[in-house]
Amino acid sequence: MKATQYVGNRTFSVIDKEMSAPAKGEVRIKVAYVGVCGTDVHIYHGMMDKRVRIPETIGHEMSGVIDAVGDGVEGFSVGEKVVVRPLDDRMAKPSDKGYNHICEELKFIGIDSPGAMQQYWNVPAFVLHKLDPTTDLKLAALVEPLAVAVHDVRRSRLRPDETAVVLGGGPIGLLVALVAKSGGAQVIVSEVNANRIAKAKQLGLQVVDPTQTDLVEYVKSKTADRRADVVFEVAGVQPALDVMTEVAGIRGRIVMVAIHGEKKPVDLFKFFWKELELIGARVYEREDYDRAIDLVTKKELPLEDMITDVQPLTQIQEVFKKIDGNPDGLKVLMDCQL
Amino acid sequence: MKATQYVGNRTFSVIDKEMSAPAKGEVRIKVAYVGVCGTDVHIYHGMMDKRVRIPETIGHEMSGVIDAVGDGVEGFSVGEKVVVRPLDDRMAKPSDKGYNHICEELKFIGIDSPGAMQQYWNVPAFVLHKLDPTTDLKLAALVEPLAVAVHDVRRSRLRPDETAVVLGGGPIGLLVALVAKSGGAQVIVSEVNANRIAKAKQLGLQVVDPTQTDLVEYVKSKTADRRADVVFEVAGVQPALDVMTEVAGIRGRIVMVAIHGEKKPVDLFKFFWKELELIGARVYEREDYDRAIDLVTKKELPLEDMITDVQPLTQIQEVFKKIDGNPDGLKVLMDCQL
Ligand SMILES: NC(=O)c1ccc[n+]([C@@H]2O[C@H](COP(=O)([O-])OP(=O)(O)OC[C@H]3O[C@@H](n4cnc5c(N)ncnc54)[C@H](O)[C@@H]3O)[C@@H](O)[C@H]2O)c1
Ligand SMILES: NC(=O)c1ccc[n+]([C@@H]2O[C@H](COP(=O)([O-])OP(=O)(O)OC[C@H]3O[C@@H](n4cnc5c(N)ncnc54)[C@H](O)[C@@H]3O)[C@@H](O)[C@H]2O)c1
Ligand SMILES: [Zn+2]
Ligand SMILES: [Zn+2]
Repeated sequence: MKATQYVGNRTFSVIDKEMSAPAKGEVRIKVAYVGVCGTDVHIYHGMMDKRVRIPETIGHEMSGVIDAVGDGVEGFSVGEKVVVRPLDDRMAKPSDKGYNHICEELKFIGIDSPGAMQQYWNVPAFVLHKLDPTTDLKLAALVEPLAVAVHDVRRSRLRPDETAVVLGGGPIGLLVALVAKSGGAQVIVSEVNANRIAKAKQLGLQVVDPTQTDLVEYVKSKTADRRADVVFEVAGVQPALDVMTEVAGIRGRIVMVAIHGEKKPVDLFKFFWKELELIGARVYEREDYDRAIDLVTKKELPLEDMITDVQPLTQIQEVFKKIDGNPDGLKVLMDCQL
Repeated sequence: MKATQYVGNRTFSVIDKEMSAPAKGEVRIKVAYVGVCGTDVHIYHGMMDKRVRIPETIGHEMSGVIDAVGDGVEGFSVGEKVVVRPLDDRMAKPSDKGYNHICEELKFIGIDSPGAMQQYWNVPAFVLHKLDPTTDLKLAALVEPLAVAVHDVRRSRLRPDETAVVLGGGPIGLLVALVAKSGGAQVIVSEVNANRIAKAKQLGLQVVDPTQTDLVEYVKSKTADRRADVVFEVAGVQPALDVMTEVAGIRGRIVMVAIHGEKKPVDLFKFFWKELELIGARVYEREDYDRAIDLVTKKELPLEDMITDVQPLTQIQEVFKKIDGNPDGLKVLMDCQL
């Protein structure tokens, strides 16, 4: 079988290795497609060299088919289509209060342990979610980021009669917008990149370029002055932090999806004045995966349009180089059997 | 009757004036006691000269007795003990979504219109809350700040099996701590001022000086490593903002009570990582007043100990001067009939 490895210094290698039998409690998956996440690009950039073992196979957005079942695994059979929820929460403690998806000792599979960028992947059975036999495995590779979006929207408590503003129309922001819209809410995306703006329109979304249009005035005009009931911060930049407290209306909920590596200035006065809420959101819980799988199965969202490129896994080095030079692309998949 | 007026330049005057009949929809209150709030001190310092008309009678923490009832007022009679909820929300709009206590055009009575630092005060009847005839009018003058605390605790969704950390043991912080504790939760106050630490202990509260003891380690030791389920930021300083995201455990809720006049650095990564919530809290709603009155009536809290001084209203200039030079005092009342 072929496996890829991040070896440091912006480099991936492609190696041949023996397929290994699934250990007790594990299954072996024949990986169909693996998506490239922003975190994978961070790893490629060497920004996570302290956390990632080198060399290591990375990747956590994937779809595949069960290829072998280890001892003690119940309820899964060879040939079944599956996706992996890449959270190893076996070290959860009582002080995690049952929020095991963000437990203090959480291991993220594909970052802290070997990932999906290989032809066959052995994983513990508890991370598996079964797919319908008819599921398109390309779309299923989007279940992981889609589950992030489902989780974010669930955390926001968005109702169908409300308006949500999504700051940032990258892959996560657009998925958040699609999920929010599918629940019936009015959704307005704010994005600065012209190609991503075009993409958002193609996906049927309402989009504003905040460098061209006054976002707050635009949202007021679309909400009879209520402003946003919910704001998703999915851009990760200071201008988004500055506008989030302005564009949110009274008792507005702001969901912090973006990862801010350092402390940033926030207008806490507005939190007091309008009784705003800031709600942190990280990855997903089991039910978010179930819902994301349901959305993929029912083909309710234009997920095909999110996939901007599909390349053979063996081209991994080229793929990362290309992603790096192209801020316009959205979701790039690699076909692991090529 | 005697009335006091803020005339600018850290100065109050005491004037004699004619008592006026209550207009239609109003009552006249014979004011018993009026408390001095941090906001009143801000006004005295000239920091709100843009907002406050000069000269103006200020004051919004009070208790009193109905002295005359205007036309069209139903359900109130002369001689009844009352407190005022000083929120004039008559300009509320649909875009305020029914959150009238923080409506965009809210007028705060005693800041934006004449207040209680006088012997008789005419107010619209809709701001009144009736007290039990047996109520101690000194304690009743604490209903307003106590309602702030009740609102803050309600916004936090604190449960009896949880631990709350209160950052800042000023008048508001201590009331928050007392209300939180009365609901059954474990409460830990963090305060740096030695006299206020002593006061908090006298009130039966658990207190830590974060300059002497590592607050996070202390809270971990008291919670089997869960850290705080709820944090109240009632200090208004950067060290409190720095520690709030540390001391909060997984899915912790941080209530922003303090008023931060400018943007401040916040650790947004921790919001993402632990799925924290930040919840803005401003003043109170009708039900918070009802609950605060109930707490005063039932004498469940050691509120007497919160009152550190009572002076005649006519001594207002001395009172403000003394408050200014004494960061140790808690709640200072003025007796409006002296
Ligand atoms: N919470 C989680 O579990 C989770 C999971 C995945 C990703 N993330 C985070 O979510 C964020 C978004 O991820 P992504 O992969 O979509 O990233 P991305 O960088 O592709 O998307 C960010 C988008 O914001 C746009 N942008 C930049 N400045 C803007 C501005 N001023 N106004 C509006 N838009 C602006 C960019 O053009 C870009 O399209 C990242 O911070 C990522 O780390 C969080
Ligand atoms: N949300 C509302 O509606 C509302 C209502 C009233 C007051 N407030 C605000 O609440 C805050 C508290 O009001 P207050 O009247 O009690 O003010 P205060 O200034 O008397 O109390 C603040 C306390 O924090 C303490 N402190 C300072 N540094 C500290 C630190 N590093 N750690 C712990 N404690 C520290 C001070 O010693 C002081 O006792 C103020 O910001 C005020 O504006 C808000
Ligand atoms: Zn990812
Ligand atoms: Zn006040």
